[in-house]
Amino acid sequence: MNKTRNPMGWGYSEDAIDRAELRPILDVMAPLLGGAPAEARPSPKPSDVRLATPAIEPPASLAAFVSTNHETRLLHAAGRSFRDLANLRAGAALPAPAAVATPRSTDELADTLAWASDRGLAAIPFGGGSSVVGGINPEDMDDWPGAVTIDLQGLDQVIEINERDRVVHAQAGILGPALEDALVGTGLAVRHYPQSYFHSTLGGWVATRGAGHFSTLRAKIEDRVQALSVMLPDGRTATTRALPASSIGPDPNRLWCGSEGALGVITDVRLRLVANPAHKLSAAIGFDDFESALEATRAIAQAEIWPAQMRVLDPFEHMVSTALAGSAGEGALMILGFEGEYDVSHARDAAVDIARAHGGTPRASGDQGAGNWRDAFFRQPYLRDALLDHAVIVDTFETALPWSAVPAFYHSVMEATGDALEDVCGHGGVACRVTHAYPDGVALYFSFYAPGEHAALLTQWQQLKAAVSEAVVDGGGTMSHHHAMGRDHRDHARTEIPAAFRSAIRGAKSALDPSGMLNPGLWFDD
Amino acid sequence: MNKTRNPMGWGYSEDAIDRAELRPILDVMAPLLGGAPAEARPSPKPSDVRLATPAIEPPASLAAFVSTNHETRLLHAAGRSFRDLANLRAGAALPAPAAVATPRSTDELADTLAWASDRGLAAIPFGGGSSVVGGINPEDMDDWPGAVTIDLQGLDQVIEINERDRVVHAQAGILGPALEDALVGTGLAVRHYPQSYFHSTLGGWVATRGAGHFSTLRAKIEDRVQALSVMLPDGRTATTRALPASSIGPDPNRLWCGSEGALGVITDVRLRLVANPAHKLSAAIGFDDFESALEATRAIAQAEIWPAQMRVLDPFEHMVSTALAGSAGEGALMILGFEGEYDVSHARDAAVDIARAHGGTPRASGDQGAGNWRDAFFRQPYLRDALLDHAVIVDTFETALPWSAVPAFYHSVMEATGDALEDVCGHGGVACRVTHAYPDGVALYFSFYAPGEHAALLTQWQQLKAAVSEAVVDGGGTMSHHHAMGRDHRDHARTEIPAAFRSAIRGAKSALDPSGMLNPGLWFDD
Repeated sequence: MNKTRNPMGWGYSEDAIDRAELRPILDVMAPLLGGAPAEARPSPKPSDVRLATPAIEPPASLAAFVSTNHETRLLHAAGRSFRDLANLRAGAALPAPAAVATPRSTDELADTLAWASDRGLAAIPFGGGSSVVGGINPEDMDDWPGAVTIDLQGLDQVIEINERDRVVHAQAGILGPALEDALVGTGLAVRHYPQSYFHSTLGGWVATRGAGHFSTLRAKIEDRVQALSVMLPDGRTATTRALPASSIGPDPNRLWCGSEGALGVITDVRLRLVANPAHKLSAAIGFDDFESALEATRAIAQAEIWPAQMRVLDPFEHMVSTALAGSAGEGALMILGFEGEYDVSHARDAAVDIARAHGGTPRASGDQGAGNWRDAFFRQPYLRDALLDHAVIVDTFETALPWSAVPAFYHSVMEATGDALEDVCGHGGVACRVTHAYPDGVALYFSFYAPGEHAALLTQWQQLKAAVSEAVVDGGGTMSHHHAMGRDHRDHARTEIPAAFRSAIRGAKSALDPSGMLNPGLWFDD
Repeated sequence: MNKTRNPMGWGYSEDAIDRAELRPILDVMAPLLGGAPAEARPSPKPSDVRLATPAIEPPASLAAFVSTNHETRLLHAAGRSFRDLANLRAGAALPAPAAVATPRSTDELADTLAWASDRGLAAIPFGGGSSVVGGINPEDMDDWPGAVTIDLQGLDQVIEINERDRVVHAQAGILGPALEDALVGTGLAVRHYPQSYFHSTLGGWVATRGAGHFSTLRAKIEDRVQALSVMLPDGRTATTRALPASSIGPDPNRLWCGSEGALGVITDVRLRLVANPAHKLSAAIGFDDFESALEATRAIAQAEIWPAQMRVLDPFEHMVSTALAGSAGEGALMILGFEGEYDVSHARDAAVDIARAHGGTPRASGDQGAGNWRDAFFRQPYLRDALLDHAVIVDTFETALPWSAVPAFYHSVMEATGDALEDVCGHGGVACRVTHAYPDGVALYFSFYAPGEHAALLTQWQQLKAAVSEAVVDGGGTMSHHHAMGRDHRDHARTEIPAAFRSAIRGAKSALDPSGMLNPGLWFDD
């Protein structure tokens, strides 16, 4: 892992999509965008981005791990939402941390918090910085002289691998691949693959209630957290007990899962592992329309046969994804993956039977193998940056909702998004896929793109985001199934959180973080 | 359900164990108790039990659903822990609610809370009253002029059965059998069977984070709660959104799961259902010793083959349970049940293979059928009352812990319990069984019995309970896997809850229940 984090875009600079890779994609997309996109305008140099917040020099005692250098502050000034990318390119001065601490021990973390507390600074816990919801942006800081961002990637040690319990205990700042590497030879694996896998952290997954793929059975990270530790602003540490289950009061782990850095700094996590699968089988099944595919998805999710993966592409998503691969897919497509320590063919066969009963037709699944799909999956966000050079707006939003609300929701959200794209950009497309399925509902993932204007990208995106967010709220979906709330979803998420729970969390926050210094502005004031 | 709740013991009066049923059990137990138990001394008449707390008359506007009659107050004065049963028999004046409200609508519930709030009374939400941990006892009420117990069994309506989502939405006061009855004809089922199934409520299950049997895959109720509503003392209602999953902040449902009535009155719950199983298979497997059986249990729990039931009896528990049935079981015994919509024979076969590989020997499972076991399971608490007539102390305690801690824990807890039984009672026996197994750990359930003295039952039990609780804490187990905290576990549970979480919950409680009137004394003051 000697790659360089891209200060202006997604992931690693070495993995950016170059012109040669982009050209055929543009050719496919041009007709969908109403013509060739705008001329490329590359993003500014990192050294040319202005930072709005003045740096605050740390005391000499912290100088070894606290930086105020421009590049470091820039790298921690924003996540990687479309809004962040547009802001990085816009030329306006960017809110930034006053300093960035990268503690290499919990003592250094405590020292950082003590300094921030003494100076009255806000403190923003930072994992991999891949938030697509404004989770780590030092914004809304009017009440604070500045923020110190606490990058946890210095706390990246594996503390224990417990093979009997199938649990890994690791520090919060460890990146996905490093955590997986530590398990080589044990027969165990994490198999939690968010799209940010290569540059997101264990603590970030937990703080945002993320979800991985290859894990329909245990999609959400919070179900896999056996225990965790957090450090509070006063340096106290809270460690929950390592238990498979308990009935002693509300579950402490669940207060910090999804706390987005506002209720303590997660320092280490005990995560439940799975066996490296000895058996893997997949199936690809075509459907005439998305509605039949969704019905089959529901039946499979409710049949207790536990596919490891269940992706379902609507016809437009299917068409676009196959066009990019040089073929022409029609109708909706379901991709199923089964894996386990024991033979999974009975489960795969049962799923295919259910799919057939709902009008599905099994297809040769050669080019839809998990490996190909996985590579493409990890490449998608890089494409967003390359297209942004051409002022093409590409963004996604995702939600979850009960099955009974799905048909009306899908149509209303597709219509509202299509209308907004036409209103704001004149052209554009929106596609939908199922990313996770549960017995009682489903997670839907929407992608949209449209020809933007270099000078108006942020405004155009804001109009689109407002329209799709309203459609999600109106339809009864959550503002996020696995991307978290962040500053981008805060206002629209308000109605889905009962007022009494908002006050309860404020009460908890007052007890844990009396000055409110942890990631301020992220949660609700009332 | 026209049976009469037993005011002095477990469950329904009609189901009490009579002398004819008890006699052969006493014959089996006598040698284990060091001789014939004490002569029977039946429990006092309900009308002879004195209530320590004076009644408080409700205003006329509430008279239709608030009672101060002796029998009603007695029935709500205590749960059904051993301590409760001993107290009911002891002749000392019993703390009791000042009044009992049984609201028939949420409006009447709000009126009850308003009255309690105006009069400065504590309010104790009450489901089925089957708590075995002192969850609903109006004790430690020095700061309150009295408590009104709110019996929720008047709120027992099924609001919606959503077959597409496989969710039932019902009011909190519905009893287990009524909820299951409402689903007849839908093909769906709850299949959550705590030992209190016949007289415990949906809201009680959720408030205590209970667990059912026939549900190793989804043992704990909190994993099945899609959404819920609570009413706060000021009459506000909080309703969480019906969602399969979300990443918008911490999960609101999880604050109220396990809240034991102290953070609001749970008024209704959306519960995830399962399909009525079309396929059922079981297996019984003998092991030379409990240690090998535990290893096999771990391997099966980690194999992702999801038995619906996995019970494992240690040799002593196996011996006693077969002796009661007139046979003589040796060694440890594992009982596996598999069920599902699709054929489960591959899973059953895989489990039997794993068990064999760990030294297990499959047995004819005729007399270990699920039906027989289930009947015996529901009868066990009734036996406790019958034996108590003879001053035999029978109690259970249960815990959960990681696999890696199990071998040392089992031996230290068995030894500490055996020592305590000998010290306190001179004789006695302790047995252990696995009730639930998870990939990362297991729930162990201990039963003990000893010859007590009629005049000293409570003191003897307190000494035993203190000894076993210390052994559980010292060994790293939770004070409860599915019985909840209550007043009986509060002090020993203290160390397993991080101090920061205790303050966070106090902060949340201050926001939800500013006067602290909901089930006071249950949670921690610091």
